[in-house]
Amino acid sequence: MELVTIRELFKNREKYLDQKVTVGGWIRSIRDSKTFGFIVVNDGSYFEPLQIVYHDKMENFGEISKQNVGAAIIVTGTLVATPQAKQPFEIQADEVTVEGTSAPDYPLQKKRHSFEYLRTISHLRPRTNTFQAVFRVRSLAAYAIHKFFQERGFVYVHTPLITGSDCEGAGEMFRVTTLDMGNVPKNEDGTVDYTKDFFGKETSLTVSGQLNGETYAQAFRSIYTFGPTFRAENSNTTRHAAEFWMIEPEIAFADLEDNMDLAEAMLKYIISYVLEEAPEEMNFFNSFVDKGLLERLHNVVNSDFARVTYTEAVEILEKNNDKFEYKVSWGCDLQTEHERYLTEQVYKRPVFVTDYPKEIKAFYMKLNEDGKTVAAVDCLVPGIGEIIGGSQREDDYEKLRARMQELDLCEEDYKFYLDLRKYGSTRHAGYGLGFERCVMYLTGMSNIRDVLPFPRTVNNCEL
Amino acid sequence: MELVTIRELFKNREKYLDQKVTVGGWIRSIRDSKTFGFIVVNDGSYFEPLQIVYHDKMENFGEISKQNVGAAIIVTGTLVATPQAKQPFEIQADEVTVEGTSAPDYPLQKKRHSFEYLRTISHLRPRTNTFQAVFRVRSLAAYAIHKFFQERGFVYVHTPLITGSDCEGAGEMFRVTTLDMGNVPKNEDGTVDYTKDFFGKETSLTVSGQLNGETYAQAFRSIYTFGPTFRAENSNTTRHAAEFWMIEPEIAFADLEDNMDLAEAMLKYIISYVLEEAPEEMNFFNSFVDKGLLERLHNVVNSDFARVTYTEAVEILEKNNDKFEYKVSWGCDLQTEHERYLTEQVYKRPVFVTDYPKEIKAFYMKLNEDGKTVAAVDCLVPGIGEIIGGSQREDDYEKLRARMQELDLCEEDYKFYLDLRKYGSTRHAGYGLGFERCVMYLTGMSNIRDVLPFPRTVNNCEL
Repeated sequence: MELVTIRELFKNREKYLDQKVTVGGWIRSIRDSKTFGFIVVNDGSYFEPLQIVYHDKMENFGEISKQNVGAAIIVTGTLVATPQAKQPFEIQADEVTVEGTSAPDYPLQKKRHSFEYLRTISHLRPRTNTFQAVFRVRSLAAYAIHKFFQERGFVYVHTPLITGSDCEGAGEMFRVTTLDMGNVPKNEDGTVDYTKDFFGKETSLTVSGQLNGETYAQAFRSIYTFGPTFRAENSNTTRHAAEFWMIEPEIAFADLEDNMDLAEAMLKYIISYVLEEAPEEMNFFNSFVDKGLLERLHNVVNSDFARVTYTEAVEILEKNNDKFEYKVSWGCDLQTEHERYLTEQVYKRPVFVTDYPKEIKAFYMKLNEDGKTVAAVDCLVPGIGEIIGGSQREDDYEKLRARMQELDLCEEDYKFYLDLRKYGSTRHAGYGLGFERCVMYLTGMSNIRDVLPFPRTVNNCEL
Repeated sequence: MELVTIRELFKNREKYLDQKVTVGGWIRSIRDSKTFGFIVVNDGSYFEPLQIVYHDKMENFGEISKQNVGAAIIVTGTLVATPQAKQPFEIQADEVTVEGTSAPDYPLQKKRHSFEYLRTISHLRPRTNTFQAVFRVRSLAAYAIHKFFQERGFVYVHTPLITGSDCEGAGEMFRVTTLDMGNVPKNEDGTVDYTKDFFGKETSLTVSGQLNGETYAQAFRSIYTFGPTFRAENSNTTRHAAEFWMIEPEIAFADLEDNMDLAEAMLKYIISYVLEEAPEEMNFFNSFVDKGLLERLHNVVNSDFARVTYTEAVEILEKNNDKFEYKVSWGCDLQTEHERYLTEQVYKRPVFVTDYPKEIKAFYMKLNEDGKTVAAVDCLVPGIGEIIGGSQREDDYEKLRARMQELDLCEEDYKFYLDLRKYGSTRHAGYGLGFERCVMYLTGMSNIRDVLPFPRTVNNCEL
């Protein structure tokens, strides 16, 4: 069908003004008098809606007037400038065809609905202003990430979702199986006989693609992953989902400084891209969801991120322990309250905290010369706390093996990972960005359920 | 670290000739005489390797000379044109630092290894020419797909991986569970008590994001998905994997013609992008993997795809039944031999076959006026057969319900899907492109295990 999008009308209005155009879309509101009527229509291509004027010279004037919110229509008419009105133009319709009616019990009426209610109709909520804005920004942010890495020559690697290993023991995992749950095959000693399972062994959904990603960084030098990740954690919070998307770049011939430079450039790139490509949506969030949003994002784009060691950060925080629920001392993990204090009160801009105690970080992080800390880095941003976590990786074969033994990791499971240190090891580093956390940060939305199209959380797997 | 990539040296050589440069990479080969030596180095950024000349004035001449293939080095020297040689330039090194040695048992020596052997070392095979080429093309093709849809205003939707429904019963599914497999909780009647599972019900890994995607197309008009998909089929072939990636665009206010136009434009775009961005890799495939590759791909880009109905196609095929193992008659599904005959022998270019018998297609496809066929479409390409399958969707509430009843589908499970036909239904259509099949088509590689970084197949889930 030859339809012009509403986005195209707004972006290239000069081309279409006083011309005949045909658009298709869904009715947001409709009102009529005896001889004419107004329809506000949205076609999903653009945040701002389009006004249609129709009139009783049309054969189907009566049919049009009785349409409900949500109905799909196709409109042909002339695009006319409306300098007196709020909107820049409208369509004076010659013809309005009803493509699909909307039943009277349509759940989205003109009034405001709570996010909680809208979560119960996840198949319809993208038709509302808020969720149109959220999911367009989500799409643009995803593309910005690909664009950023591809422009820099990074290779996109699809690390596997089904895995036979548990990565770093980073979290509870979902089992993947084709065994008959009603009649699980057992070994003689009563344990489950996984040799009968699809892969001939125990398998789960991945919690991170990092270790696989490292193998490709040692071949392509600069790679990134962008794919789904899973945690079977029984935590019913506004920031946890069982299924979420993660971006994990990994760079060879690179140290912690290079890692921070990359993360800073990436965050600034994503924010700038979304501000540029979705100004209407971002203004909407700033007005109706999170008043300080635009100022905060512009501040991130325009500031140099601060860099501080964990040890220095702890010194600063200890002096303010009276302000915190959890008191800080060297060795403890930082809580969100501490992270936000650092980035919002102390630095008033994003900050990288580096060199954490090895005990609170993963086995693969590079041991610093002090023997106590590792070359880890968290990026903290105002309004949210930690948004990125990464590290330089231990590239020394013997040191990595020793650390694995300390932690009782099974060497056989990590043979491939040790191989990377045996054959042409390089300084290398990488980080993980939780994509939903990033979208929440970009939009000001405060519940992860509202930035995932179909969120999966404890006891919730609808549609 | 301030290193220049080998890609940058090749792409902007004028800038670097006769200048000091520093590169980091892995040794592909090394040979020395008493006073100087040659190293061929690859840094993963570019398909062509770079030659380094080093000499005995270096303190560590001996150390360098004893390095093994696979070792990582950092080289500083002058980029010098070599008009007499095969390669356009080389680096006359001032300094070669060993970043990481390569143990003597490095599994990749200079000789050719079989793909079968390389599958057993999936963490190292991206360091070989073939797999460098495959996985760079895979990355570029993925980006081309995003670029194509984003430039056309499509919204990228992350449809869920864990699902409580079985879509169209399209294939065997993997179960996702956190129940204790050694002690599965049971109901009084002996069935499994899934209310105790993580989501409070039975869940599996998705076989398609289409139905979820349709809900977003009815809000954004044009959307696409690009994510992992799963099939627990016990088929050990060169074309099946248990975990693969799929692209599923869905367009509202669009019919089967629009669907074919989109698919044709997309395929041409992907091919053109890869030919443009990876000429070295594509020449390599054409020389060493599949002699007719470039000719075939150029032919696809430059031809208008043919369009034929299933009924017409069957008439053509029936006349040639003596050539086929499986004889064709109206009502049967087309086999790869038939598909390839149509596209390679009859049309000699890609062909869309449309309007299949409803019995061999999914319930959601739009019933044609003949009452016998549905508005389905498969796109067949030379050398492979079907690469894309799609359809216009049934947009009539009553017809869809009737079809679901014929097929005994549980209406309650599809309430959300029926809602789309109840509230502002539109003509709409979409298709699925299996990403691995697309990469195989682009590279000429003939085993799906060789285009997935870490393939998952029956009894195989390594790393």
